[in-house]
Amino acid sequence: MMEFRIAFIGFGVVGQGLAEILVEQKQMLKERYDFDFKVVAISDTMKGSVFDAQGFDLEKLLSIVKETGKIEDYPEGIKGWDSLKTITDSTANLILEVAWTDLKTGEPAITHVKTALKNKKHVVLTNKGPIALAVKELLALAEENNVEMRFEGTVLSGTPALNLGLYNLAGSGITKAKGIVNGTTNYILTEMEKGMDYESALKQAQELGYAEADPTADVEGYDALGKIVILANTVMGANLSKDEPPCEGITKITAEDITKAKAEGFRWKLIAGAEIRADGSVEAYVRPEKIPLNHPLANIMGPTNALTYTTKYLGDVTIVGPGAGRTPTGYALLADILDINRIVKE
Amino acid sequence: MMEFRIAFIGFGVVGQGLAEILVEQKQMLKERYDFDFKVVAISDTMKGSVFDAQGFDLEKLLSIVKETGKIEDYPEGIKGWDSLKTITDSTANLILEVAWTDLKTGEPAITHVKTALKNKKHVVLTNKGPIALAVKELLALAEENNVEMRFEGTVLSGTPALNLGLYNLAGSGITKAKGIVNGTTNYILTEMEKGMDYESALKQAQELGYAEADPTADVEGYDALGKIVILANTVMGANLSKDEPPCEGITKITAEDITKAKAEGFRWKLIAGAEIRADGSVEAYVRPEKIPLNHPLANIMGPTNALTYTTKYLGDVTIVGPGAGRTPTGYALLADILDINRIVKE
Repeated sequence: MMEFRIAFIGFGVVGQGLAEILVEQKQMLKERYDFDFKVVAISDTMKGSVFDAQGFDLEKLLSIVKETGKIEDYPEGIKGWDSLKTITDSTANLILEVAWTDLKTGEPAITHVKTALKNKKHVVLTNKGPIALAVKELLALAEENNVEMRFEGTVLSGTPALNLGLYNLAGSGITKAKGIVNGTTNYILTEMEKGMDYESALKQAQELGYAEADPTADVEGYDALGKIVILANTVMGANLSKDEPPCEGITKITAEDITKAKAEGFRWKLIAGAEIRADGSVEAYVRPEKIPLNHPLANIMGPTNALTYTTKYLGDVTIVGPGAGRTPTGYALLADILDINRIVKE
Repeated sequence: MMEFRIAFIGFGVVGQGLAEILVEQKQMLKERYDFDFKVVAISDTMKGSVFDAQGFDLEKLLSIVKETGKIEDYPEGIKGWDSLKTITDSTANLILEVAWTDLKTGEPAITHVKTALKNKKHVVLTNKGPIALAVKELLALAEENNVEMRFEGTVLSGTPALNLGLYNLAGSGITKAKGIVNGTTNYILTEMEKGMDYESALKQAQELGYAEADPTADVEGYDALGKIVILANTVMGANLSKDEPPCEGITKITAEDITKAKAEGFRWKLIAGAEIRADGSVEAYVRPEKIPLNHPLANIMGPTNALTYTTKYLGDVTIVGPGAGRTPTGYALLADILDINRIVKE
């Protein structure tokens, strides 16, 4: 087995979430999964950077970052490298792209990923930008350079919805994917059913950290749209641009709509779907749907997410789990890294 | 990528189910998953055997088997090899063990699997016997001989419940697995809730092919027990023998119990569970449980199965899908074969 030499590009909540898991589980990961690693570089626009070919004392580094907010306070190593120099010049053979997401341009993450792949380094990311905008080009670049790229955390955080479709259900004949892929809106709808109005439910979601200060991307459906486009393009072979499919959020649903639906045996859910048409093309959408109460998706409540694949050989297969969060998203990186560890033998 | 040369040991409904999928999907499997194969040998106690290093015309072979029931009516190849000679002397590098299941001794399947592994051939099986009785010994033998062994189809057929725990949730800190893992009993309980008595529901399950003529293994919980023991031993590192955990089936549940539970907001389900205790040991059980109607497992109806993993880093992750059937179990073999194709590069 190879030794993984890891570089973090970005070191916010997701990166730190993974680093904490790595500290806790290092010995188990070696014993159970034959996974050997050291973290050799971190570069973050706000917190600074450090490279040390020996590998860090990760526990120490984490506690310094928590105390001072400055990576450069770590006593060893070379300081001051920017993200690109960290990718090209560090001894890392695995780059974790966990810097900020820009869904309009995908930058600087797309450049980070391309640079890493061209330098024959494996890449794992949770950053939706590069995947929503350029996944096919990036996968081709990975193949050309004989390295792996994984991105489970871009959809349903660490719940393995994406890898389920890509790997576990390989060859099952997936014709449709449909689910609840945004936890914020599902939380709001759940609270509204309990009697809260939309504004109060949104405010509560913001206080709990489920919704951003600007909730537009969640409540208007754009976050869900980005995820279903990623699923359609990677699992179902589509070529959708991320603004193409029709998208409607939850802002027009009233407390009255919810009560009325419930009385009729239905529940409003924000549904993201993608389906292969008879001509082989794929259509996708995000819209509120009234789901019968005895349907599995109707009973997914609060911030939980779920995705159902309809397949030729298995019928429906559904996965349910968390859709967001520091630790679940940090764990998504670990799941992908361990998958690369299974695949790569040199 | 290597070319897989496949031998079927046993060619009943599951083997034929896979063969049909392979015929339908050959081109797609090559294009999408870079999966090259030919089927070079089949040996079945009842139907006879054939070996042809060139590979069969699989469509032709399937139609001959359907017409005459005799593999030996296939016009090409060497006839008359038994299962062991087929494993050792054919040019196959991948053995599919889909002969009959004996949960008492595991034979002859255990000998088939051992022989294949010692001869450095990959093995995929849906046969619960060897996995329930000897999985650790067999996995060690595979590792020693540098070949792969997969057995997704032994639990929830092609629904990737086992590989989810083994691979996708690697490192997530699984502490518990709990679910509905027997479709026959879930179907009977569902029909009883609709008003049928136990005997009629069982009879209907038998007519639909969900239950065997002798339904003991299903209704007394032994089938579910075998599956939870496999999960505990492979995913949770336990060392349970298959008769160790307490096991209670559904035969004592009356229509009255079901009605009464429903009125109180519960539903009876046959639950199989395994949990890591504080001291690191694993306890498992099969028993009917009253599940609150708003719990995800309460809404799994008919022959559908579901399994929930409780994890340290993701909380609960649940998978729902078919638990049995000719095509879903045949597909389980394909999913495992494609996983080996991802792993093995020579």
